[in-house]
Amino acid sequence: MVIVGIDPGLAHTGWGVITSDGRSWRACAYGCIDTRSDQSMAERLHIIYEGVCDVLIRYHATHAAVEDVFSSTNVRTAFSLGQARGSALLACSLCDGVVGEYSPNTIKQHIVGHGHADKDQVSYMVQMLLGLDHVPQPDHCSDALAIALTHGFSLTRDERLKEVCAS
Amino acid sequence: MVIVGIDPGLAHTGWGVITSDGRSWRACAYGCIDTRSDQSMAERLHIIYEGVCDVLIRYHATHAAVEDVFSSTNVRTAFSLGQARGSALLACSLCDGVVGEYSPNTIKQHIVGHGHADKDQVSYMVQMLLGLDHVPQPDHCSDALAIALTHGFSLTRDERLKEVCAS
Repeated sequence: MVIVGIDPGLAHTGWGVITSDGRSWRACAYGCIDTRSDQSMAERLHIIYEGVCDVLIRYHATHAAVEDVFSSTNVRTAFSLGQARGSALLACSLCDGVVGEYSPNTIKQHIVGHGHADKDQVSYMVQMLLGLDHVPQPDHCSDALAIALTHGFSLTRDERLKEVCAS
Repeated sequence: MVIVGIDPGLAHTGWGVITSDGRSWRACAYGCIDTRSDQSMAERLHIIYEGVCDVLIRYHATHAAVEDVFSSTNVRTAFSLGQARGSALLACSLCDGVVGEYSPNTIKQHIVGHGHADKDQVSYMVQMLLGLDHVPQPDHCSDALAIALTHGFSLTRDERLKEVCAS
């Protein structure tokens, strides 16, 4: 089982890849897809889409999950973020069948145990759960790994065992 | 020269195809890509993306233009619309190189002559400019043809002649 988590954003889209042996989780890789504000919207969406496709293919992803990043109070920001998220979600849906979608509160609930944890608590728990010797940086990577873990935790025990036995 | 105009929306994405002989414009086809609210966001974005790709390929599009639909005052709506527009814009950028992007005011300015025209005036002028015997329905189709015409009008005379001579 290989789960790719995506934290979408127009300037920085974090990605994180985790695997499981049926009991514990391990981080395979993580990184960030960056675009520049002097690029056209079409170019930026293209870079995000290609970047996500590349990660899914390179790590032979069996599952993908994308954060439902809606949290802005600014309409113009929400519109830009929506376009970035659309590209990331589309890439996931083309490379795989079902895509997990989780709100920030759901992710915090799964990782820390309550929906109003701060970002540092989430990063710390990501480090602990994946047995890393440091907090993954930048923040987008830590968030992406948290999304992947949330998706892993959301799968039932039976689903996880089935995946592990099939691989 | 074959220009595809796209009026993106999560439930209804209008499309319109026009051609030019260097002097006047003609509508080749128009239609609507529909998604349902009981489908997942990933499914809906996939349908929009595939639908736009299909139109671009079927009509051998040489140019594509997408409305910059940002007009909502509701953040949640802007986020959904952004995701739909992201999929449509991405499809255009993958099938072609440069994609035109026009705001509603710019489209009205090009089609009717002032940026605050109402929708009926735009539809009426689309009918007149394309020599159609009725206003294209539904509204999304008329809007998509208006976007395609705006892109056509935005190309310089030299660019248009070069395109016609090359085809």
